[in-house]
Amino acid sequence: MADIDARFGRVRPAPENFLTAEQIVAVKDGRRDFLRKAFLAASAAMAVPAAVRAAGEGDPAILNLPPWSTSLGLPVAANPYGMPSRYERGLRRRESPGLTRVGGSSVAFTPLQGLFGIITPSGLHFERHHQGWHDVDPSKHRLMINGLVRTNAVFTMDDLMRLPSVSRIHFIECGANTGMEWGNVAVPTVQYSHGMISCSEFTGVPLKEILDMCGADYKQGRYVLAEGADGSSMTRTIPMELIESGEVFVAYGMNGEMLRPENGYPLRLVVPGVQGVSWVKWLRRIEVGDKPWATKDEAVHYIDLMPDGLHRQYTSVQECKSVITTPSGGQLLLDKGFYNISGMAWSGRGRITRVDVSTDGGINWREARLETPVLSKAVTRFNIGWVWDGKPAILQSRAVDETGHVQPSYGQLRKVRGTRSIYHNNAIQSWKVVESGEVSNVQVL
Amino acid sequence: MADIDARFGRVRPAPENFLTAEQIVAVKDGRRDFLRKAFLAASAAMAVPAAVRAAGEGDPAILNLPPWSTSLGLPVAANPYGMPSRYERGLRRRESPGLTRVGGSSVAFTPLQGLFGIITPSGLHFERHHQGWHDVDPSKHRLMINGLVRTNAVFTMDDLMRLPSVSRIHFIECGANTGMEWGNVAVPTVQYSHGMISCSEFTGVPLKEILDMCGADYKQGRYVLAEGADGSSMTRTIPMELIESGEVFVAYGMNGEMLRPENGYPLRLVVPGVQGVSWVKWLRRIEVGDKPWATKDEAVHYIDLMPDGLHRQYTSVQECKSVITTPSGGQLLLDKGFYNISGMAWSGRGRITRVDVSTDGGINWREARLETPVLSKAVTRFNIGWVWDGKPAILQSRAVDETGHVQPSYGQLRKVRGTRSIYHNNAIQSWKVVESGEVSNVQVL
Repeated sequence: MADIDARFGRVRPAPENFLTAEQIVAVKDGRRDFLRKAFLAASAAMAVPAAVRAAGEGDPAILNLPPWSTSLGLPVAANPYGMPSRYERGLRRRESPGLTRVGGSSVAFTPLQGLFGIITPSGLHFERHHQGWHDVDPSKHRLMINGLVRTNAVFTMDDLMRLPSVSRIHFIECGANTGMEWGNVAVPTVQYSHGMISCSEFTGVPLKEILDMCGADYKQGRYVLAEGADGSSMTRTIPMELIESGEVFVAYGMNGEMLRPENGYPLRLVVPGVQGVSWVKWLRRIEVGDKPWATKDEAVHYIDLMPDGLHRQYTSVQECKSVITTPSGGQLLLDKGFYNISGMAWSGRGRITRVDVSTDGGINWREARLETPVLSKAVTRFNIGWVWDGKPAILQSRAVDETGHVQPSYGQLRKVRGTRSIYHNNAIQSWKVVESGEVSNVQVL
Repeated sequence: MADIDARFGRVRPAPENFLTAEQIVAVKDGRRDFLRKAFLAASAAMAVPAAVRAAGEGDPAILNLPPWSTSLGLPVAANPYGMPSRYERGLRRRESPGLTRVGGSSVAFTPLQGLFGIITPSGLHFERHHQGWHDVDPSKHRLMINGLVRTNAVFTMDDLMRLPSVSRIHFIECGANTGMEWGNVAVPTVQYSHGMISCSEFTGVPLKEILDMCGADYKQGRYVLAEGADGSSMTRTIPMELIESGEVFVAYGMNGEMLRPENGYPLRLVVPGVQGVSWVKWLRRIEVGDKPWATKDEAVHYIDLMPDGLHRQYTSVQECKSVITTPSGGQLLLDKGFYNISGMAWSGRGRITRVDVSTDGGINWREARLETPVLSKAVTRFNIGWVWDGKPAILQSRAVDETGHVQPSYGQLRKVRGTRSIYHNNAIQSWKVVESGEVSNVQVL
C-alpha cells in the first residue's frame, strides 16, 4: 500500500458491514474468486464465526451485506420531483443571524463549502430580497415596454415564450458579497464570506429582440429602466450599450426549468457581469429613456464610502475574483497527506485565463488546473493537488481574467478603497490551516 | 403594433389586475408619465370608475396592484432547500403505465417538453432501476478495487473526495430510449418518446487515477468490471481503452451537489457517450480483468434482434441523435405566427457540428442556431424561428456530429436494423401540426 500511503495517507480497513473477515483476507491476497470462496466458506455452518452467524438470517445476511444490497428498493417516481439524500440535510441556504431586521430584506447564503463544479443547484441559489419573495402567478404576470419606443406593448408569459430564445451559463453575484470582510470581521465559513454568488444556465429572450419589436429609439434612448413586481418596486438603470451587445436577456428559465420563486419566477433580467441587484426579479416593466433615472437603489444605496470621504457611486461590474471552497473555514483535515484543493473563479469582464494557488500565504504560487468549460462571465472551477505535511499553512487563490485584471490582495485593495466600503470586495481570500487540521478565515494584507 | 403582429400575432390586451383602464389608454398613447397621471386620476374619488373603486382598498388597491406588489413577501431561507413554483407542479417525472410489473425495475421519464438549455434539473433526471433505489448511507459505503492490480484497496467516501477531482458536463441516455418507437407504437409526448436522456455536470475522480494508485496491470488487464451495491448487483464490462483515455470517472457530484439517491448516491460510474446501464450506480467494486465478463446485463439483456434473426450484442455507444422538444406531441399552438422551435442534439462520439430543421416533413431543411457551450458527449441546445401559417406541418430535426455521422430517417435505420429492436434508436423524430394547432407524434420513413 506504500504508493497509496504516499498519495493520501492510510486506506481504511474494510468495515464489518461490507466484507467478512475471510473476504478481507482474500482481498489482501488478491484472489479474484474471493467472493465465491467466501460465500461457500460462510455457507458451511461450521465455518461461520459466531459473531457473523448471529448477525443475520440466510445467505445474504451471513455475507453481512447492507440492506440496500439485499432488498427491493423504492420504485421510480417515488419522488416525482427528486430531492437530495437525507444525509445531505446539513447543506442548506443559511441566513446570517442579525444581518437585517427582517428576513424579507435579508440574505440567504449558498453553502459553497459543499458544492462542486460551476453549476449551482437551484435549490441552493443564494437569496437577496428587498421586500421578501412571492410565488407569482405566471398567468397574471405581464411585461410592459414603454418610454422611447414607437409601440408600447404588454407581453404575457405565453407571448414571451414564443420569441427567439437563448440559453447561456452566467454567474450572478450580489455587489455586497464578501462585504463583511472590508474591516477585520472574519466570518467563519466560505458560505458567509462568499455565499452570495451562484452560477446557472439561464434561458430567455434577448431584450434587444423585444425592444426592436417595439421600435425602440436607440438614438435618444440610451438607457432602460428595469422594474420589478415585488413590494419594493426595485428599479435599476441599465445602459443601452449592454442591451445592444445582445448580452442582456429576459429570462424565464434557470438550470433547465422555470426560474424558482425566490429567484424571480416567472421572469427576471439577466445582466451578465453586473452585480445582482440589476438582475431585476419578477420583472414587470422596461422603460426606454434618454438619461439615467438615479433610482433609490442606485443613488442612495449600493454606494461606497471612500477614504477621502467621498462616495463611490453607480458601480456595477463584478471584478475578477476567486476563492478556495475546499479546504475552507470550519473544515477539518483528518490527517496528513494528499488533498485536492478546489475553488471557483469568475470575472464580470470576460473569461478567466489563469488561477494561481499558494499554500504558504502568498510566498510561492502554483498554477491550478481549470476545468472546462471556461465561459465568459461564468464561474470557472479550478483544482490543484497539495500534500499537507501537518504543519501550519495559509491557502490562497489569485485569479486573472482575459482583460489582464489580477485579483488584488487586501493591502492593494484597501490602499485605493479603504476599509469602510460594503460593495465590490474582490480581494484574495486566505484560509489558515493549523497542526490540528482545523481551517479558519484569516486576513493577509 | 403591425411589426409585432407580423412577428408573432396579436399582443394580448393588458389585464385588469395589472393596469387600470386609464393606464391601458395611456400605454396605447405612449405617455411616459402615465403611471403618475393614472395614480392621481385614480386618487381623485370622482375620477375612479365604480368597477375600479369596488375592486380594492386604499391607493395600491385602487391601482389594482397584485398582492405580491403590495405586501411584504416570504423571508429568505423560508425554504433552506428551494423547490419549483407551485404553478409548475405538472412538470414531473412520470412512469409509463404498465411498462414493467414493478416500479422497482421500471423507468421514470424526464419531462423534456417543459425544459430548456442543456442542464437537466436533478429533481427531474430520468430514472431506470433494476431493483429499485435506496438512500445509501455514505459513511457505510465503500469502493473496492481488486483483480489484476498490485495492491487491492477499499476506499471510503472521505478517501475518494481527497483525490484529484474533475468536473465535466455529459449526457446520459438509456440504451432503450425511444425504444417503443421501433414498431409503430407512437407514444403521445416527447417525455415518453425521448425522456430517458438527461445532461448534467458531474464531478469525481478519474478511474485511471485510482487504478494507477493500485498498480493496475494495463498489459494483461484490458477490461474492468463495474459492480453496483443495489439488490440487482448490476455488473458491466468496460474496455480499458476508455479508462486510459481519462474520460471515465467515479462521480460523487451532479449539478454542483452530491448525486441524488435515485442516480446512485453516493457514487456512480460516468462513462461518457456510452449507454446509461454502464454508468453503474451505487458503485461498490471495480475489478481489473483480462477478458470481458459477459454478465447477465450484457450477454442476456441489452441485445437486439436483427432482421436476419441474429442478435446484435455488446453495443454501447449512443449514436448521433436529436429531437424537437417544443413544439412537441401533446402541445397546442394557440394561433398563427411566430414560434421558436427548440430542441436537443447529442452524440456519444463527440461534438454536435450541425442541426437542420424541417417544417414540411423533410422536403426543405434550414440550419438551426446552436447555443453555446457545444461540448463533447453532452447535450447541445438548438433554436430556430418559424412562422406558422396555420396549415398542416411536420416538424423534424436532423443532427450531424464531428465524425460526420448524420442522424438517420426511420426508413434508413429500419433497412439495417429492422423493426424488432429495443435499443439504440436514433432515428429522426417527426411531430405533426394540424389546423387546430394540435401537435402529435407521427412516424415518417
